[in-house]
Amino acid sequence: MNDEATSVVRVGVVGAGAMGAAHVQTLTRWVGGARVSAVHDADPERTAQVAQLAGARAAASAEQLVGADDVDAVLVAAPDPLHEELVLACLAGGLPVLCEKPLATGTEGSRRVVDAELAGGRRLVQVGFMRRFDPAYVELRALVRSGALGDVRAAHCVHRNAQAHPDATSEGVLVNSMIHELDVVPWLLDDPLAAVTVHAARVPAGALRDVQVAVLETVAGAVVTVEVSVNARYGYDIHTEVVGTAGTASLTPPYGLGVRRAGLSGRVVGGDFVARFADAYREELAAWVQGIREDRPVGPSAWDGHRANLAASAAVESLHGAGRVEVPHEPTPPLYA
Amino acid sequence: MNDEATSVVRVGVVGAGAMGAAHVQTLTRWVGGARVSAVHDADPERTAQVAQLAGARAAASAEQLVGADDVDAVLVAAPDPLHEELVLACLAGGLPVLCEKPLATGTEGSRRVVDAELAGGRRLVQVGFMRRFDPAYVELRALVRSGALGDVRAAHCVHRNAQAHPDATSEGVLVNSMIHELDVVPWLLDDPLAAVTVHAARVPAGALRDVQVAVLETVAGAVVTVEVSVNARYGYDIHTEVVGTAGTASLTPPYGLGVRRAGLSGRVVGGDFVARFADAYREELAAWVQGIREDRPVGPSAWDGHRANLAASAAVESLHGAGRVEVPHEPTPPLYA
Amino acid sequence: MNDEATSVVRVGVVGAGAMGAAHVQTLTRWVGGARVSAVHDADPERTAQVAQLAGARAAASAEQLVGADDVDAVLVAAPDPLHEELVLACLAGGLPVLCEKPLATGTEGSRRVVDAELAGGRRLVQVGFMRRFDPAYVELRALVRSGALGDVRAAHCVHRNAQAHPDATSEGVLVNSMIHELDVVPWLLDDPLAAVTVHAARVPAGALRDVQVAVLETVAGAVVTVEVSVNARYGYDIHTEVVGTAGTASLTPPYGLGVRRAGLSGRVVGGDFVARFADAYREELAAWVQGIREDRPVGPSAWDGHRANLAASAAVESLHGAGRVEVPHEPTPPLYA
Amino acid sequence: MNDEATSVVRVGVVGAGAMGAAHVQTLTRWVGGARVSAVHDADPERTAQVAQLAGARAAASAEQLVGADDVDAVLVAAPDPLHEELVLACLAGGLPVLCEKPLATGTEGSRRVVDAELAGGRRLVQVGFMRRFDPAYVELRALVRSGALGDVRAAHCVHRNAQAHPDATSEGVLVNSMIHELDVVPWLLDDPLAAVTVHAARVPAGALRDVQVAVLETVAGAVVTVEVSVNARYGYDIHTEVVGTAGTASLTPPYGLGVRRAGLSGRVVGGDFVARFADAYREELAAWVQGIREDRPVGPSAWDGHRANLAASAAVESLHGAGRVEVPHEPTPPLYA
Repeated sequence: MNDEATSVVRVGVVGAGAMGAAHVQTLTRWVGGARVSAVHDADPERTAQVAQLAGARAAASAEQLVGADDVDAVLVAAPDPLHEELVLACLAGGLPVLCEKPLATGTEGSRRVVDAELAGGRRLVQVGFMRRFDPAYVELRALVRSGALGDVRAAHCVHRNAQAHPDATSEGVLVNSMIHELDVVPWLLDDPLAAVTVHAARVPAGALRDVQVAVLETVAGAVVTVEVSVNARYGYDIHTEVVGTAGTASLTPPYGLGVRRAGLSGRVVGGDFVARFADAYREELAAWVQGIREDRPVGPSAWDGHRANLAASAAVESLHGAGRVEVPHEPTPPLYA
Repeated sequence: MNDEATSVVRVGVVGAGAMGAAHVQTLTRWVGGARVSAVHDADPERTAQVAQLAGARAAASAEQLVGADDVDAVLVAAPDPLHEELVLACLAGGLPVLCEKPLATGTEGSRRVVDAELAGGRRLVQVGFMRRFDPAYVELRALVRSGALGDVRAAHCVHRNAQAHPDATSEGVLVNSMIHELDVVPWLLDDPLAAVTVHAARVPAGALRDVQVAVLETVAGAVVTVEVSVNARYGYDIHTEVVGTAGTASLTPPYGLGVRRAGLSGRVVGGDFVARFADAYREELAAWVQGIREDRPVGPSAWDGHRANLAASAAVESLHGAGRVEVPHEPTPPLYA
Repeated sequence: MNDEATSVVRVGVVGAGAMGAAHVQTLTRWVGGARVSAVHDADPERTAQVAQLAGARAAASAEQLVGADDVDAVLVAAPDPLHEELVLACLAGGLPVLCEKPLATGTEGSRRVVDAELAGGRRLVQVGFMRRFDPAYVELRALVRSGALGDVRAAHCVHRNAQAHPDATSEGVLVNSMIHELDVVPWLLDDPLAAVTVHAARVPAGALRDVQVAVLETVAGAVVTVEVSVNARYGYDIHTEVVGTAGTASLTPPYGLGVRRAGLSGRVVGGDFVARFADAYREELAAWVQGIREDRPVGPSAWDGHRANLAASAAVESLHGAGRVEVPHEPTPPLYA
Repeated sequence: MNDEATSVVRVGVVGAGAMGAAHVQTLTRWVGGARVSAVHDADPERTAQVAQLAGARAAASAEQLVGADDVDAVLVAAPDPLHEELVLACLAGGLPVLCEKPLATGTEGSRRVVDAELAGGRRLVQVGFMRRFDPAYVELRALVRSGALGDVRAAHCVHRNAQAHPDATSEGVLVNSMIHELDVVPWLLDDPLAAVTVHAARVPAGALRDVQVAVLETVAGAVVTVEVSVNARYGYDIHTEVVGTAGTASLTPPYGLGVRRAGLSGRVVGGDFVARFADAYREELAAWVQGIREDRPVGPSAWDGHRANLAASAAVESLHGAGRVEVPHEPTPPLYA
């Protein structure tokens, strides 16, 4: 072995919860051209633990991280309400930033991020819609684009979490969970969302509005159903089928174990979305790092993050009783074209 | 072998198209206590052919069949517009009748049938919603009722025909195809339909509105999506998954062949709904005949046929631009309780 | 309704255990042209119960049934050691007989049955290899014959019973369970068996030799593996995949319920082979009855029963330590050609 | 970004065919602690191309690579006949080496490698049995070890290549393809192989002996079937099911696309084993590199490579007509315990 000089991207990570820790491990173990150099979390103990995992320094505050000499790029996995300000700080510092979804907690916030990036004139923001990097989603999109399915008329998505976070809200089902579909569906179909209607199952008074079903209409006229369940109990489960005039295509279940026991023949369903999308996260981070090294932004942009917020906002309005709500159409700024 | 006296139900069949001919074959081959005694179709050649299949007489008109001495019960598989009048004639004659869906071409018609049966004070009508006899639907319903799925929050149905009939209309997608789900979903969940919203995919001007997606809301508050495609091309395909708070349950694909060839590993999908539901039709006819022999009506009633019509009518209204349409609630007459 | 004369086959059933009772129900409920007229079982109570099910008389002995005036044909579902003598009695009486497998408990016995039938010069015996009537097996065989799989090089069979009969023996695993594959494989491939090698998993001393794996070699040179497990616990499960030079084809799992719960997504596996092969039994009995009515024997013959016995006998020899054992080739008598 | 000193393992790769090139890409893209520093292939053009991929130097000979100052460890992906001598050269130089399977082209060769490593007294060799790193195999092994399946009685493996290499031989089906199962099965079950019987399907004279089915017997008495097809045409397909007294467990199909078209509902089967085992290769190389960094050998050893060769040699003997052949039992040297 030999000590040698190589050029690596030094990543500062803000937020060391489950998602942040997983990103730190992925960067450390799997992404050749990157190194986690600094970690900050509101919880100093968690900061220290996760920093140690990566051989990184523990930063006492986000300020001590964003803009520090040993940080070339920032990964934001902090609580949602902090996303906007952290991303704006990175933009102010000219730092590439990968921000977990949502980009901001509302459409005004995500618009502010877009405006700040536009003002800088340079794409620095990637939003953590990792499904765009999932191998089967990528293949599915390629199949749709190839025309092999004919014209797309419908799609069906199921998004089930094993167990809701104790702080989950009925709006969060849309804003935190369904937002993945609100981003990935228009990307899959290459067809923006035009309207959304949310139908929530009735639940006991005061309970979380779970299950929620949205019907998305695309600009080209496809009809997309999305079920989100946040207490599915049996595991974390993601399905998507695209229905065209010449056939359908879907994601298969992830690779793993099949079992036959106790009157059942089936496959094991994991409960963990980090494991389910391990390849997607790995590809996402590798693409981000490679994009930074080549100064060539890739992946979902701030604009994509803003558009998902526009759709999520329409969905929340629908949930609150507005029926069918149109998703505002805002022209794509040239920077994102 | 020996000639002997047995008591069999002599069935007159009106309509000898694909469905009528299939029923004649099922009755002849599989249903011990029945015999097809007379057949009538508007096409004399078809009448003769199908009558010969069963060793039955060819009736020159429906009138020569309904009420004839050799007809104990009538199976109506004639074109939809004739259903109402044929069923009313049977009711007038006090004859048990199994009528293919829809019971009548509109809610006024199905209401007239219900009223006529109520006036007679005796249940004579069974509607051909054969899915209620399909073994997996029956098991699925039992599982729902057992409580093993917890509270039902959602369900997803897919109903795909390989190829639309040349005369298919956009309304027919709902009235002829989706009507099966409009009947079977409330039966499965033991929970009537409260509202329906139809979202039809955009198609080239003048083309059949295919694919259509309906969202059904039940009285108890479950949300049910139903996709109907009438030109699915790859085959006839029926899915249903019920989503409860403790797990989900679904119909598996029908038994048949798996193949691995040309880059695919999968199962063969047939194009034929008669074959797909062969067991259901067999059970349906056997139950009908047994019910007649025991003077104990079974299966979907005229009231069920009327309620499906009410839902289909609401769906058509929604398709025509009315958005979410409530399904009228009419109290169940005691005869059908 | 009307009483009328029809010509039906009056079936006498010998053996009213689970299999016999199931056959009585199938004949009564599903097979139009037949009627169970008499039942006999060594257990008078069971005789009475099952006879009542069918509205048949209870016969005090097999002799009172075979050859009685009210019995046109006999179904033998008695214990295996009685098969030979009952079938011989039917042959002596010129009666069509459907005998559950095995046709006799050894190759000498089955040869005696064949010789008796040959002496009579008329095919009267059908052996209860019901899988030949299973719809997916029938389709699989048609696909093999069509050439669509290319040349068949291999096949894999799995045959799992949920729980062994308390009297099960290690030889019985082959003679009672694997015998289905020993019959159906050469029929599927249209290619007789040439040799068999049995590999039994090691078990605690004195325990039933379960699991057993046989390798069958066909005359044309295909290699077929057959696993039989008689205590699979999780359910009754049958698989067959045929491997050709152009692809493979297999039986899919039977139709039923899929469930997602407790970390698993799968399908329900039943424990009951009668339910698993309900369609096959129905088709088997209907074809038998129709064959009798048309005086045209169908289905597996006494010769097929004898050939399966030859293969099973070779398998037992292999199990007892003989390694690879050739299946004796006996030329097919013209009556069975 | 910043230039900084890090300690990385500099890997020299011998052999730049499909497998070698894939390893170079995996190391470069995915394995953080490693760098490909030198590449050699008999074909200078390929050497140059693959070296460029990795930013490595092109070595003119294997000698210029093994033992060079810029090579900390060697990956051998050269043609099989060169494996032994290259591994011996690495051992002579005290270099960690990952050698593609087989470790040597015969049992004498693999024994010589073992002896050389034993003489050195230090484990330096890892053999490229990558399936041991595949996530589902790892889970399957853990499940077997947990006892959840009860006692293992049988297993079934299918190993199908889409298309044989033009130079493929009948022995190669065993030595190059089935060798994966000959390694992974005893590892999965933690139970060495005791005997092997190969049954090859009959093929036209002179043709490759494809399909071959082996029955493996383990020391503990389990019976394992392995089908290898090298011209499966439809794709590359790997199955393994372990059958225990309490249930079975299996690998599910890999993640990817499902499609419904042209009368089929299924999943896409890829033709490429590198893609199929991408995760396994990634984990294999990462574990190798990490093991080198920590001076803690992991993964399949030279001894494992030798044992697989012993089994493959027995299989070849069986193919050549020897029937059931016992796998020689050689006591495990302490270095490998």
